[in-house]
Amino acid sequence: MNKRMVAYFVGSVLRIEAALMLLPLLVSLIYREEEWIYIAAPIVLSFIVGSALSIRKPANMSFYTREGIMSVALSWILMSVFGAIPMWHAVEHIGFTDALFETISGFTTTGASILTEIESLPKGILFWRSFTHWVGGMGILVFVLALLPTASGENIYLMRAESPGPSVGKLVPKVRETAKILYCIYLAITVIEIIILKITGLSLYESAVLTFGTVGTGGFAVRNTGCIDLTSAQQSVLTVFMVICGANFNVYFLLVARKFKEAFTSEEVIAYLSIYAAAVIAVAINVRDMFASFGQALHHSFFNVASVMTTTGFATTDFNLWPNFSRIMLLVAMFIGGCAGSTAGGIKVSRIVIGLKTIRKELEHLVHPRSVRILKFEGKPIEHAVLRGINVYFLTYFCVFAVSILLVAFDGKDFTTTVTSVIATFNNIGPGLDMVGPLGNYSQFSAFSKYVLMFDMLAGRLELFPMLLLFMPMTWRRQR
Amino acid sequence: MNKRMVAYFVGSVLRIEAALMLLPLLVSLIYREEEWIYIAAPIVLSFIVGSALSIRKPANMSFYTREGIMSVALSWILMSVFGAIPMWHAVEHIGFTDALFETISGFTTTGASILTEIESLPKGILFWRSFTHWVGGMGILVFVLALLPTASGENIYLMRAESPGPSVGKLVPKVRETAKILYCIYLAITVIEIIILKITGLSLYESAVLTFGTVGTGGFAVRNTGCIDLTSAQQSVLTVFMVICGANFNVYFLLVARKFKEAFTSEEVIAYLSIYAAAVIAVAINVRDMFASFGQALHHSFFNVASVMTTTGFATTDFNLWPNFSRIMLLVAMFIGGCAGSTAGGIKVSRIVIGLKTIRKELEHLVHPRSVRILKFEGKPIEHAVLRGINVYFLTYFCVFAVSILLVAFDGKDFTTTVTSVIATFNNIGPGLDMVGPLGNYSQFSAFSKYVLMFDMLAGRLELFPMLLLFMPMTWRRQR
Repeated sequence: MNKRMVAYFVGSVLRIEAALMLLPLLVSLIYREEEWIYIAAPIVLSFIVGSALSIRKPANMSFYTREGIMSVALSWILMSVFGAIPMWHAVEHIGFTDALFETISGFTTTGASILTEIESLPKGILFWRSFTHWVGGMGILVFVLALLPTASGENIYLMRAESPGPSVGKLVPKVRETAKILYCIYLAITVIEIIILKITGLSLYESAVLTFGTVGTGGFAVRNTGCIDLTSAQQSVLTVFMVICGANFNVYFLLVARKFKEAFTSEEVIAYLSIYAAAVIAVAINVRDMFASFGQALHHSFFNVASVMTTTGFATTDFNLWPNFSRIMLLVAMFIGGCAGSTAGGIKVSRIVIGLKTIRKELEHLVHPRSVRILKFEGKPIEHAVLRGINVYFLTYFCVFAVSILLVAFDGKDFTTTVTSVIATFNNIGPGLDMVGPLGNYSQFSAFSKYVLMFDMLAGRLELFPMLLLFMPMTWRRQR
Repeated sequence: MNKRMVAYFVGSVLRIEAALMLLPLLVSLIYREEEWIYIAAPIVLSFIVGSALSIRKPANMSFYTREGIMSVALSWILMSVFGAIPMWHAVEHIGFTDALFETISGFTTTGASILTEIESLPKGILFWRSFTHWVGGMGILVFVLALLPTASGENIYLMRAESPGPSVGKLVPKVRETAKILYCIYLAITVIEIIILKITGLSLYESAVLTFGTVGTGGFAVRNTGCIDLTSAQQSVLTVFMVICGANFNVYFLLVARKFKEAFTSEEVIAYLSIYAAAVIAVAINVRDMFASFGQALHHSFFNVASVMTTTGFATTDFNLWPNFSRIMLLVAMFIGGCAGSTAGGIKVSRIVIGLKTIRKELEHLVHPRSVRILKFEGKPIEHAVLRGINVYFLTYFCVFAVSILLVAFDGKDFTTTVTSVIATFNNIGPGLDMVGPLGNYSQFSAFSKYVLMFDMLAGRLELFPMLLLFMPMTWRRQR
């Protein structure tokens, strides 16, 4: 492995992180909070470490899958470690494990929290906490790619390791240009949502923080009650933007490029919206009696189904108290997740659609053994490598899932809490059911369970393999 | 589709069923029970219907996968319908849905029960209830193959559709001979267990009934308390035979053929025993404090882990009251199940092992993209078709699983009950947790949920595809 090249990349990421942390530092200074020093310190620290690692370009710039995967895994871990410092020092009675949990939860856009009381925390710290969603949503390596000039032409490995979904579509021939376009779209959506939320009457600060939680599909809020106290209009704005950010960003590129026909016939987005609509209606009918009117039920169903399916994790009501059918419907939506190429987590709609097509083909093959049918997705034949990747993904997904549940079970929490805590972190949602429901939190788990769930959050965000490879001896062995 | 050939097979199965029911009829007559008539009636009925369907051999004997699959699916449904008649009439306050549930649960060797009180039921009826486990364990079509002379050389389709596991190994070149050998081994194990249980002090009747539940890995008992009141020695006998019947029967063939080296190096059986041993130890340590001594804890762990992993479903204690780690360990064992080519359900150890090897290969491929490694199992390269079959199996398995949970969730039962009722029926175990725990039962579900669970039991036993194809329009369309 070209370790110097990996160090160079990780170092670049840490320097970018230092730069990004200037924004929460500014917020802290504006509000004249004495905790500004806890943000300033890690800025200096990560800049120094980042610079030490990346001060000189390595002589050998060769960079393959293995280097790409390791760069991604190590970058995410190290930026979480440095990113955890503000919270670790600024919040009372919080250990490093808890601060790290909260930061990984932020970067992976999970939104699972160990904090029991957030309203009293310094605004600069809370801003950083939510800003990690924004940074992690699109991926920090994509950001590095968009900004840093690198000599290597193999950047696609980096993007592949960090981008959600079964295959990475390059929008334009160059990876760097693709990354830039994606970040511009992302920035535009962010600015629009902040402006609209500001218009509905929220402060600029809260508008920004909620927007980071929405567009990154993260879910950290700044009130102890989450989104329950927001007005219906504000909740509806969040609903719309959650749905927008759970859809494949390629569609927005197509819209910008005026390829309307392609944009409106995206198979994945149509499937995504259909599943969403069906789930909303089913849940609304099921929870009808819990609200004053069917309209109210529909409003909350629109919000909360969008929240779990896009793996955001906001809640307008304690859906843990909903009837069991709705609770289980929400869990199924958690597994499905958003589209590939979005900021959402979960298995991804494209994998589900391709998986169902694979099953259909197999059934057809049993009935008509001589039939030959080519699987297509988005109008194109699916490459064999992509199909194999999806199959291996499903296998790995359920293995990691089962092992995680067993490990968290050591904690002795009840069945629903144990299982849904893994579902909610591995799919990067945040809230699960029972003890980890929308009004609960993850503070009661043991440190061991917290580390397992941190692994799951990172594994879920980085599409499993980088985190698994990190712990495989073969990754570190010399090339044969 | 060659419908006449399918009818011929289904008819043969019904005639065999009529013959098999003579045994419980005999038991009923020996105990001079007035309910003998409820067993005699379906014997006559299924013999008449079976004969009508199979009186003449069809002129066209061509028989392919589609016909094989449909024969299996329809045979299992029809034999359950006829098999449900005795219970429907002999048990008070029981509807046809409940009787059918109990019978499908029997044939699929699930052992999930809707009965709340069994000790007062007629012995002939209970004998038939447990005997269905024995019949379903090895598969009735395998039985038909072993007995009936058929002209078709395509019998492998039938065996493939009914035999558990990713691929069917023919022990000897001829399918019929293979089927005969398997049934002889099965019969021998059955006789040995009955004799040993008789020696430990049980009546011949109870020895036989418990043996059917063990060797078929079914789990119906004849006491309301299941196996709790048995002596430790009797429980240990059951443990050993459950483990024996969850292993691949090919190994016993190899032993009989004196191929000891091959028998003792079976990759699947070694993995099966290793997983079993690890789970037993983990659970024993976890439940240590619930028993008088660690030896006691180990004894119950041996029994109950064997019971769920081989998908039998007997219990020596209410494991629903065990600590959460053990409960979840048992659930994971339920998913894994026994070996291919055994009478057990679940995903099967061979699929798990091959799945893990596939993941390992993918990780290696990421690290060393140019490495070429051929996946091997039991010392032989795995055929591409088998690998594809396993991948599709996993996809289909989790789809059916998710849809079933959603459908059963309409019932509004709590999360644990809903999820584990599907786990316990789909994997053919029987007891789950909470309301469907070892001392609970399935009587409180709605008729709709019961039909969903019946579908799951059949889909689990017949390896998914026959039951799915039964409901696909394309199966019934004319060949293109």
